[in-house]
Amino acid sequence: MPDPELSASGEFGFIDWVRRQPAADARVLVGPGDDTAVVAWPAGADCLVTTDMLLEGSCFLLAEAGPRRVGRKAMAVNLSDIAAMAGRPHFAVVSVGLPRRGGRALAEELYRGLRECAEAFGVAVIGGDTNSWDGPLTISVTLLGSPTGRGPVLRRGARPGDWIMATGDFGGSILGKHLDFMPRVQEALTLHGLVELHAMIDVSDGLAQDLYHLCRESGCGAVLRAESIPIAAAAHASSDNQSPLDHALGDGEDFELLFAVTPEDGRRLLAEQPLGSVRLSHLGEFVDRGVWLESAGQRQELPPRGYVHRLE
Amino acid sequence: MPDPELSASGEFGFIDWVRRQPAADARVLVGPGDDTAVVAWPAGADCLVTTDMLLEGSCFLLAEAGPRRVGRKAMAVNLSDIAAMAGRPHFAVVSVGLPRRGGRALAEELYRGLRECAEAFGVAVIGGDTNSWDGPLTISVTLLGSPTGRGPVLRRGARPGDWIMATGDFGGSILGKHLDFMPRVQEALTLHGLVELHAMIDVSDGLAQDLYHLCRESGCGAVLRAESIPIAAAAHASSDNQSPLDHALGDGEDFELLFAVTPEDGRRLLAEQPLGSVRLSHLGEFVDRGVWLESAGQRQELPPRGYVHRLE
Repeated sequence: MPDPELSASGEFGFIDWVRRQPAADARVLVGPGDDTAVVAWPAGADCLVTTDMLLEGSCFLLAEAGPRRVGRKAMAVNLSDIAAMAGRPHFAVVSVGLPRRGGRALAEELYRGLRECAEAFGVAVIGGDTNSWDGPLTISVTLLGSPTGRGPVLRRGARPGDWIMATGDFGGSILGKHLDFMPRVQEALTLHGLVELHAMIDVSDGLAQDLYHLCRESGCGAVLRAESIPIAAAAHASSDNQSPLDHALGDGEDFELLFAVTPEDGRRLLAEQPLGSVRLSHLGEFVDRGVWLESAGQRQELPPRGYVHRLE
Repeated sequence: MPDPELSASGEFGFIDWVRRQPAADARVLVGPGDDTAVVAWPAGADCLVTTDMLLEGSCFLLAEAGPRRVGRKAMAVNLSDIAAMAGRPHFAVVSVGLPRRGGRALAEELYRGLRECAEAFGVAVIGGDTNSWDGPLTISVTLLGSPTGRGPVLRRGARPGDWIMATGDFGGSILGKHLDFMPRVQEALTLHGLVELHAMIDVSDGLAQDLYHLCRESGCGAVLRAESIPIAAAAHASSDNQSPLDHALGDGEDFELLFAVTPEDGRRLLAEQPLGSVRLSHLGEFVDRGVWLESAGQRQELPPRGYVHRLE
């Protein structure tokens, strides 16, 4: 589509704005503004790559959250994936589809939220693709990181007898935590330095659902003890007909770490609480097969509830 | 949002489908299905990173193009950016927002197109994020590559006196080439091996617009000779009131390489035509300042026409 002028309010204006942001980072050899970014990769390090897309109306309500918090969330969900590998985040690229009307102001706030979150975790935003369209806001972030010398922690690796442990608490994230959660990057690195993490995942789909993922990848089962699940205050605040436990099991977007360690390491972590204000809990054990919820000594099968994107 | 069942037609069904695709690749240590992908990075190599988002109704018409060609294009536009750095593509991640109704069949065709294009260029699709929503189809691909031992070719580096050269021809891409173009990855590597490429860009916004980008980054000007511009047959086929030359200058999405070399190297490339059926042309010269179109010996200022995303 031919267009005779370079509008200050068009894409190039926005890219200029991005390029004017402070970004002195010796790792970034070529930043935004060329055909690709060029970054120096740590010698000998493998590359962790994750991508997440947020869609207005599905993943957030723009009017409620505001663009700055949406930008923050778009970065933070990717950081949470790097945390789940016990990795270090390095570089991000950002693609956005902006509604045409109000898109410039929206873009600046969105980008501010992205950048603030990136900087807090030492991540350089090295490029992106800015588009306008007649659809709702859509934003996709890809984040590159590297594992530590101890290697990445996968979803597979949990063994029957291992403890199920988690950071923080669960349920009711829709009341605010789904936007303002703190990705557990530093916490994962600390844990990885202290003990052998057999398997780990960040809880995005829901505690029950993500426990299923760990079990499926590890080829084992699990027993969650209802009384041991740390339930967030927000899980009690809902006025629907679900119990706080149901919220904790199924709400999702808690972005806490769920992981497997030996009972010995688990006892040590529980006693030492090495993450300070981020509380570690012992939720149950991995077993040979099945996924169970145990309450007052009674086991019942745990349905893998949680958020599933439906396609028809 | 709690959901009591893992539907075979939901997100996990699609991820399973992706994971069943053949992907034996020794560089991919952990593929789709964990919190991040893990890839072995070539020792000592810098990392090229590019991302592009395609939006239904803005970047393509789904009913006209079909999902397989849209998937192909989403990969190919990123390959074209790696080509513009004379780099080698390695790994891709893909985020999609799928319309809820018909999304499963759409996703499979989209993914097939992505995968076919990736495989043709030795790219491993290592992960992604699949979402459904009530909006139109949106797809974002991030591609990682590495420069050759000669380093990446940037937009800056053109010098007054350099020749302006290009692969292929220009204009009328909307009639089909914008979907079916061949990313000039191999061509760029061949050129980079033969001569010193001072600066390079892939023509996505439009020949005039992208020449402006080269000039701006290089701090110089350029003179395009109208009679030397290779005009595509498709640029003659339009029934609007623009001339074929106007189409060649402004249409965009040609995805040809536009680059700067010394006159000596230019003459050599023009004589040798090392790219076989992909014709190299000499379009003009870089100069001190201004961007000009010369026709029958007369110079006029060339407006930087081309596609600009407008924001309000």
